[in-house]
Amino acid sequence: MKAVRIFDHGGVDKLVYGDFPMPEIGPRDVRVQVTATGVSLWDIKYRRGELPVLPGRPAFPMPMQLGRDAAGRVEAVGRDVTAFAVGDRVVGLVHPANPASALTVRGFGNLSTEIEYPGHTLFGGNAQFVARPESYWMKLPSGASESAAAAALWSYSTAHRILADRLGAHLGDSVLLIGASGGMGSATLDLAELMGLRVIAVTRSAQKKAFLEARGAAAVVVLSGKDDAAAVRAYADQLGVDGAIDYSGDPTMLKLAIDVLRPGGTLVVAAVEGGGGPVPLTTRDCLRLEINLRGARASTLNDQRCVIDLLGQGKIEPAIHTVLPLSAIGEAHTLLESGTVSGRILLDPWGERS
Amino acid sequence: MKAVRIFDHGGVDKLVYGDFPMPEIGPRDVRVQVTATGVSLWDIKYRRGELPVLPGRPAFPMPMQLGRDAAGRVEAVGRDVTAFAVGDRVVGLVHPANPASALTVRGFGNLSTEIEYPGHTLFGGNAQFVARPESYWMKLPSGASESAAAAALWSYSTAHRILADRLGAHLGDSVLLIGASGGMGSATLDLAELMGLRVIAVTRSAQKKAFLEARGAAAVVVLSGKDDAAAVRAYADQLGVDGAIDYSGDPTMLKLAIDVLRPGGTLVVAAVEGGGGPVPLTTRDCLRLEINLRGARASTLNDQRCVIDLLGQGKIEPAIHTVLPLSAIGEAHTLLESGTVSGRILLDPWGERS
Repeated sequence: MKAVRIFDHGGVDKLVYGDFPMPEIGPRDVRVQVTATGVSLWDIKYRRGELPVLPGRPAFPMPMQLGRDAAGRVEAVGRDVTAFAVGDRVVGLVHPANPASALTVRGFGNLSTEIEYPGHTLFGGNAQFVARPESYWMKLPSGASESAAAAALWSYSTAHRILADRLGAHLGDSVLLIGASGGMGSATLDLAELMGLRVIAVTRSAQKKAFLEARGAAAVVVLSGKDDAAAVRAYADQLGVDGAIDYSGDPTMLKLAIDVLRPGGTLVVAAVEGGGGPVPLTTRDCLRLEINLRGARASTLNDQRCVIDLLGQGKIEPAIHTVLPLSAIGEAHTLLESGTVSGRILLDPWGERS
Repeated sequence: MKAVRIFDHGGVDKLVYGDFPMPEIGPRDVRVQVTATGVSLWDIKYRRGELPVLPGRPAFPMPMQLGRDAAGRVEAVGRDVTAFAVGDRVVGLVHPANPASALTVRGFGNLSTEIEYPGHTLFGGNAQFVARPESYWMKLPSGASESAAAAALWSYSTAHRILADRLGAHLGDSVLLIGASGGMGSATLDLAELMGLRVIAVTRSAQKKAFLEARGAAAVVVLSGKDDAAAVRAYADQLGVDGAIDYSGDPTMLKLAIDVLRPGGTLVVAAVEGGGGPVPLTTRDCLRLEINLRGARASTLNDQRCVIDLLGQGKIEPAIHTVLPLSAIGEAHTLLESGTVSGRILLDPWGERS
């Protein structure tokens, strides 16, 4: 079968598209014929060797088959598999949970330890066939296409966790969204609109204003570096915004969020893009605002289930930037690295260059 | 009547103990004969002129009668007063709420704007008689002494808000307590034990170990500046502590709390004692821990009600360092400034030097 693997870290030249053995299946495994698989920033980080190993997690092995997301049809099942049958349409879980992990028991399945992560420690989805334990797959409802499921699962389930759990926002609340144009921002806008939130998106690019309004932002502030806080506050109530979500990791943006937050408001920090540096927070801010600052990482199985349900109901619509054949993997990585992508890049493992 | 007032900011020589007119009462006012009134760090800050004016709050007027806390017996009521009668035993609310404030409506009565604060913008409790609107008083249950009520209200109600609302701790959870020896720390230890929490107190002073254990700490770590995180972790479960409360404002202590917190744990920042400086938090910490960092300031009416109920039931026991006659106000301030006080300093407006 065709697949993409890497044997050591480096540039796009390290991506090996070629013929590899069909994955074998154990008694509890489900093998899926993949019809849509994603390219994400995690693949780029893995390829470059930039991923930090988290506490309780295994180091990253080589060779690795990249790809966090995969959707397709069940092609074979192991003899002890009970939840799936050949022909089922499924999506592969981007954040499986180890039920025995102390963190899962505490309600943090998203931070689960001692579990294999597709595309990181377990062969990922960038292949024609993928075999994984049955607990790594979820059935698709009839209304959910395989490509939409592969495109939505990662970003929407993370955004779902942030909105439904970390932010604690209520109907009608105002939310400042930083990094609204990216994949996470776009998913957050879509879900926030469903939840009845009023999103104030900020962007450095005047060109993106119309795009963000079309994606459901109630207001878009084009940042000028001067009076930005006042510009955001003009769209909030007298006290400030009820919540803020940061996908930038940029200290200037985090400071803006703290400056416009209402007392008792919540700031969700969901990115280390700036290198994981200092949050510009003081103890005076903590007391002045009674701030709630909450970190966010990944999603629980419940978030993933909710997103697939919403997709089945036709309530969400993930942005797909383009679909490329699996053989164009180098092009796909280069495109994602360019920073010009809006929405997900998908790969078709059976497609030819059109 | 005898009272303590200041006419400008400065040292203890600015405290004027003397005869002042009996306070008049309006139709909705309740006048109380004060039998116990406290001296707090807020009085010191007010006297020195170190209080920042918060947004939505009036500036601090002169002259001022100091004293946040006051308890005693109702001596006269205005003609429209319905909730109190002469002879009722009461305690004066340290944090009244303006019901019309947008923050009260949002559930943050503790951050209420456009309200007068006793000892800051309204004459405080350091007097033989105090008149305030009826909404500024709360009746005492028979089991609660006036001195215990005056001693407990401020620190216990703030600690109650932190434990019951901001920390979100559950029965059996481990909680790191920084600044455990002070008035707030002592109140927090008392309430945390009632809530079934396991408090790990840290102190720089080996002498305080026995005192903190006697006050209910499950474990006391004497800080050495070396391997402090490991010493704390030895008393937590494998993941770290469930929560941490900081009353120090010290960046080194805040860093210690972040280092020992479990993923998904909560850090409550409840002090600006270090001058309101930076919290040593990075975006990497935010994601690594899915941290919940929450500011805390003062208490709601509900916290105050709960504390008085607990006092009435004999479930809490505020530490009273000493009781001095009101005429010894300068001595009381000097004693509090010395940093050697454990528990509240109370003043008796009717007492003589024994």
